[in-house]
Amino acid sequence: MPYYRLVLAYDGTDFQGWQAQKRECRTVQGVLEDALSRLAGNAPVRVSGAGRTDAGVHALGQVAAVQLSRDLAPPELLRALNGLLPEDVRAREACLAPAGFHPRRSAVSKLYRYVLDTGPVQLPTRRRYAAHVPWALAEEAVRAAAGRFEGRHDFASLMSSGSSVRTSVRTVLRSEARFEGPADGRTLVYEVEAEGFLRKMVRSLVGALVAVGRGVLTSPDLDRALAARDRRGWPAPAEARGLTLVSVAYETTMLR
Amino acid sequence: MPYYRLVLAYDGTDFQGWQAQKRECRTVQGVLEDALSRLAGNAPVRVSGAGRTDAGVHALGQVAAVQLSRDLAPPELLRALNGLLPEDVRAREACLAPAGFHPRRSAVSKLYRYVLDTGPVQLPTRRRYAAHVPWALAEEAVRAAAGRFEGRHDFASLMSSGSSVRTSVRTVLRSEARFEGPADGRTLVYEVEAEGFLRKMVRSLVGALVAVGRGVLTSPDLDRALAARDRRGWPAPAEARGLTLVSVAYETTMLR
Repeated sequence: MPYYRLVLAYDGTDFQGWQAQKRECRTVQGVLEDALSRLAGNAPVRVSGAGRTDAGVHALGQVAAVQLSRDLAPPELLRALNGLLPEDVRAREACLAPAGFHPRRSAVSKLYRYVLDTGPVQLPTRRRYAAHVPWALAEEAVRAAAGRFEGRHDFASLMSSGSSVRTSVRTVLRSEARFEGPADGRTLVYEVEAEGFLRKMVRSLVGALVAVGRGVLTSPDLDRALAARDRRGWPAPAEARGLTLVSVAYETTMLR
Repeated sequence: MPYYRLVLAYDGTDFQGWQAQKRECRTVQGVLEDALSRLAGNAPVRVSGAGRTDAGVHALGQVAAVQLSRDLAPPELLRALNGLLPEDVRAREACLAPAGFHPRRSAVSKLYRYVLDTGPVQLPTRRRYAAHVPWALAEEAVRAAAGRFEGRHDFASLMSSGSSVRTSVRTVLRSEARFEGPADGRTLVYEVEAEGFLRKMVRSLVGALVAVGRGVLTSPDLDRALAARDRRGWPAPAEARGLTLVSVAYETTMLR
């Protein structure tokens, strides 16, 4: 049975996240499995994904893998799959994957982007893909705070309650904030790449950047809040709609 | 009674266009009049607009005018109005207008932008604000064709059937196409500024640019189709979702 790697883009607005849950929830994994199952003559199909994006979170380069009972050339699979998927999910690439490939476990790193509009009024044409706060942010302070997340840290302060992960230590390869747009309504674009992320980690990092940008937290406060390993001292996570999973990186041996 | 000028942005996806029609249609003018009427103690309110955008067409800088029975300072009107409007319409500016001001008749020119993604797959996060064709377009031919629309022309070939306008002659001040993005999925961005437009004129111009870009029409064909003053020889208009009314220009005497 051929084993495929898929690269997917989706608009997360109308999904209850990636992961298939109860039947009544519309999830990306769910609509993808439905479409692939139809392609495979209604045989049950199980898809694994690189990142379990939450409700409302978007993707430009989510990676998934699936074994199909039907042998399709990758370009043919791509065309047929896009014919069956709803318009808020598209397959961008399809190719054969080596047997040992697993979208999450084989991943070397993931890149997320968060977009946050500031200023009095957010343009309606931006509201699905950018979050919004009405305040101006102190740009230099936000850029400096973003840089402090780089490196190997224990992110226990950002952990959701009841989380069962083995360790909250993560290595952040890049953490960069920049500002774009007109002076009366700047847009914060935050990109963060890491070997792995805790649940809601990017949104919690952005929550902290906003607190710093508003002057609610200073940089030393932020260092203390991270070192405390106590989520009660960490700012609330930012909204889901501003977040996009941009890409997932693999060793070239996994991309045959 | 104070007379106000408003600058509005909206996501046209869920509207049956600008103009208030039957009660059951959701229009931008309709939701705006409802909100302003509530601000004015439920007195009936009539709003005039600069451009009657069609269903699905967006705006960054639509201009409207309204006379209110209640005297509100413009910043107060702006805040209160945004508190009552649905989230797919926002008032960006509010100010007092001179008595002779009319959003459409006083306008010197209007600027529209059309965005068209090309290539095999459109990203789901772009589908509301950009149209899509699966073909690559011949870029130089499209840029040259766009330039041919500049100047004073009789655009009778682009007119909708049953149109009752006095003349189909319009002066196009600027007509410019550019291409952006990756080689395997370029985006056409077309900007056109004119003193006035016929109904669906921009979408008809884009329909012709796509025909030229695909090689279905040559530049001489296009000149002949325009000179023929016969809409049967003109390509079909492009989809509404790619079109945005960017801004409306006025004489400074009208912007007190």
